[in-house]
Parts: sequence; C-alpha cells; structure tokens
Amino acid sequence: MFVYRTKVRLKDTDATGVLYFSCLFNDAVEVFEEFLQDRGVPLKDWIASSIGMPVVHAEADYLAPLRVGDEVEICLTVEELGSTSVAFRYCFCDSKRNLEVGRVKMVHVVIDQKTGQPIPIPDSLKEILSPLASVR
Amino acid sequence: MFVYRTKVRLKDTDATGVLYFSCLFNDAVEVFEEFLQDRGVPLKDWIASSIGMPVVHAEADYLAPLRVGDEVEICLTVEELGSTSVAFRYCFCDSKRNLEVGRVKMVHVVIDQKTGQPIPIPDSLKEILSPLASVR
Amino acid sequence: MFVYRTKVRLKDTDATGVLYFSCLFNDAVEVFEEFLQDRGVPLKDWIASSIGMPVVHAEADYLAPLRVGDEVEICLTVEELGSTSVAFRYCFCDSKRNLEVGRVKMVHVVIDQKTGQPIPIPDSLKEILSPLASVR
Amino acid sequence: MFVYRTKVRLKDTDATGVLYFSCLFNDAVEVFEEFLQDRGVPLKDWIASSIGMPVVHAEADYLAPLRVGDEVEICLTVEELGSTSVAFRYCFCDSKRNLEVGRVKMVHVVIDQKTGQPIPIPDSLKEILSPLASVR
Repeated sequence: MFVYRTKVRLKDTDATGVLYFSCLFNDAVEVFEEFLQDRGVPLKDWIASSIGMPVVHAEADYLAPLRVGDEVEICLTVEELGSTSVAFRYCFCDSKRNLEVGRVKMVHVVIDQKTGQPIPIPDSLKEILSPLASVR
Repeated sequence: MFVYRTKVRLKDTDATGVLYFSCLFNDAVEVFEEFLQDRGVPLKDWIASSIGMPVVHAEADYLAPLRVGDEVEICLTVEELGSTSVAFRYCFCDSKRNLEVGRVKMVHVVIDQKTGQPIPIPDSLKEILSPLASVR
Repeated sequence: MFVYRTKVRLKDTDATGVLYFSCLFNDAVEVFEEFLQDRGVPLKDWIASSIGMPVVHAEADYLAPLRVGDEVEICLTVEELGSTSVAFRYCFCDSKRNLEVGRVKMVHVVIDQKTGQPIPIPDSLKEILSPLASVR
Repeated sequence: MFVYRTKVRLKDTDATGVLYFSCLFNDAVEVFEEFLQDRGVPLKDWIASSIGMPVVHAEADYLAPLRVGDEVEICLTVEELGSTSVAFRYCFCDSKRNLEVGRVKMVHVVIDQKTGQPIPIPDSLKEILSPLASVR
C-alpha cells in the first residue's frame, strides 16, 4: 500500500460547490506519479523511454461530496497484476471526517511506444508493483 | 440519440502526446450540457433549482489514442432510466477515421439539494430522457 | 479579425459560482487553434514540425463574471507582429448581454524546437497573421 | 514571504512536452490557498462568507520550460496592498536547477458577494497580508 495526502483545490470544484467528478482521476494519477518517483522510476523517465503505460480503463465511485480545502488521504493498491497490464485501486478518505469519499480503479497496459502494441511488463516494474498487490 | 461534435484541444493533451484520459469525461459532460440546453432545460437552471444531479459513478474505456485537432463525434444514449437515477452512455468516434475511440458511462442520481437525499426523477426530466433510452 | 463562439462549461466554473479565471486563457488558445485550422495550418502540423510557438507572456483582465452556459464571442486580432514574436489580443463579449467581459493578451515566440532559440517568423505564418493586425 | 513547493504533474503538460502555460496560474492559486489556510483563514471560510475576492487581472511571464516531475519552489509576496484590492506576486524557481522559470502577478479585488461592489479590505485580512508586502 502506498499512501498520499492532498487537498481539494478551488480549481477542482465547480459551480455546484463540490469537487468536479473527473478531478478524482487526476488525483489518482498524482498518487501514481508520487509512487513512481518514490520508487526511483519517475514518470519522466518512462515518457522518455520506449515503454508507454496508457490508461485503457478508468472508473470511479463517488460516495460523498468533497469541498474546497477538504483533506484527502489516498491509498494505492494493485488489484491485479497481469502479464501486459496492471489494475490499480485508489481509495479516497476524508482525513478529518475519517470517511471513505470515493474509489478509483485504473487499468494501464504496457506498450511499445513505437508500435503501440502491448508488451510484457518489465521485471523492474513488476518488482515495485508486486508489493502493492493486496493479498486476499 | 443525441449527437455532438468537438475537437481535441491542446490543453487536453499531455506530454505523452495524446489526450489525457480524464478529459474524455469532460467531453461527455459537455455533451450533456448541450443536450440539456437543446431540450430547453439548461444546466444553469438546474444549478439554480432545488434539484441536484451529482455523478455517483463514472467509467471509460479507451480504444485508440486521440491527438490534438482530432475531430470527435459523440453519441449520447440513456442506458438505464431508474426511479432516482439515470445511466448515460457516450460513444466517441473519430470522424475522419470512422473509428470508435472511446466509451463513457456516467450514472447521475437526482437529489434534493438541501438534504442531499435521492428523490424521484421529475417528470419534466423523464420526458426528455426517455426518448434517449435505447430499445434492445 | 477572427471570431469564434463558445460557451462557459461546468468544468470551467468553480465553487464561487463563476468562471475560474485561468480558463479564459484556455478559451483563447481554443480560438488560436480554430484560427490556425481555418487557415489550413493546424496546430497538429506545427507540433510535428521543427518550429515551436511557446507562450512567453500572458495576461488577462476580468470585467464581469461569467456563469455556466453563458455564450461568449471571442475576437482575435494581432496586436504586434515582430520579427520572432507575435502578440495576440482576444476580446471576450457576452453574446446575450452584449457586454465585454474580458480581455486576454498572449505573446508567443517562434523557436527552433531543437535549440529552443528564437527564429524569424516563417513567411507562411506571417501571411496568415498580417491580415489580423489591427490598423490604428 | 510565503514559500510553497510543488511538482509539475502529467495532466498539466501538453503535447508539446512541457507545462501548459495557464497551469502556472493554477499553481499560484494553490499557493494562495495554502497561505490562507496557514494563516487560519482558509478559502473555504471566505467562500461561505459575504466577502468575495475575484481576480480582476492576471499575468505571467514564462522564462524556461517546465517538464513533468520538475520540482518548483514558489515565493509569494504582496506587491501592492490597496484599499479595496491587493496585488500578489509569485516567483517560480526550479528547485534542482536553481533557476527562475516564471513569474505570476494576480490582482484580486475585495467585494460584497451580494452587490458585487468593491469594499475596503477587512482589517483581519490586511493583518495577514501586510507582512508579505515587500519593502523596497
């Protein structure tokens, strides 16, 4: 499990007064970026490499509204580690209210940037992802 | 079915050179806004009313990368019209390549803005949503 | 003068109920993209070329608040056409209220993408920009 | 002076490979939000109050490109503290390269949310802004 904390920003809210729903996905990617950097393989390096990791599926459930300034704790786990793809799960918890406010699932496929075709997940990546896989 | 056309903008791409995935959801909402306005009940009026329509679930599948300037045709249908919620389906097609590039599903629940509790979908809203429900 | 029409979208508003200020810049770029495409030199082609046009200065004045659904007419003119840079002016007018709501100025410099150094504006670009230069 | 650190995120870059220019403004607002919270008067409270602080002018200079993962240190100072308005200055420095990469200036006017008219800056706000005013 990898844990990251952030806050709801004004720009991520909309005229209904709460978080604009798609910003939850952006927060998830921020966690992913922090995780990669923490493990010594920053996104910057991946982008410069021959390997891509595009999102092929994304979904979110919204359990409670979030407002500007709300502090959120996000827990990242690996739900499924396939041969060419990986499914991440992000749980969002309102730190002050100790309340689960949302869940995000994102599936990335590992590809060769030139051909756009799926390739086996590199061992170096598997090594940092495996510890995040939840034991059931 | 309601059809809307838009283009991939520079600000919606990222350093990997293609559309940043969560922008597909933003496009879907743009279609929803255009649909409501076309039917004479613009989002602006809903926000000012006592009725809210927050997103409780959102998901997307990414079938092909989109690049800046790509023209996209988006078809909106109603997948399920419940008593207090509605599930929309958005199909994204690259106009020039005549290629399905993505799919979005979004579930909104109709609530009383004061209590935050679900309420039956108003008849006025049902009337404009029913024709979008796909017959199977 | 090049004119483009758009609408204020929910995602571009914030919890104060009005347009989030930096979105005015995004709208300006959308006008720029439409202008380039209209003239047969889409941004997509520029990005793929050896020439870059990064923004080196941007400024905006906000004259009246904009709300979701407001229709905006944006007029693009060239304020100054230098040897290696160009200053654009965008005037935002609320179509229904016939009211100027904002102004944006953006200065781009033309660079060689490899060296990052300024280069003379290509004649092909000058030709499409010159007619937009306001005569005083 | 108030200092805040952040990183360039993937979603804030575009297909040219660098930070999308208007995101510098978003970062500035993030600093402003952190400053207000640090001083015990979070933006959330202002939004709920009868006082508004809309941006009436914003400008930015871009001195060097920023890429995903770049760490940025942002220094906030008050350039001018008027009777009904305040001008903030944000200096962006690339932490690793120790290089100034950008500057943002933003002018907010303090208004009565009901009338939309400017009002004198409340003393409570002046007290926290004055120490940020640079002595020349």
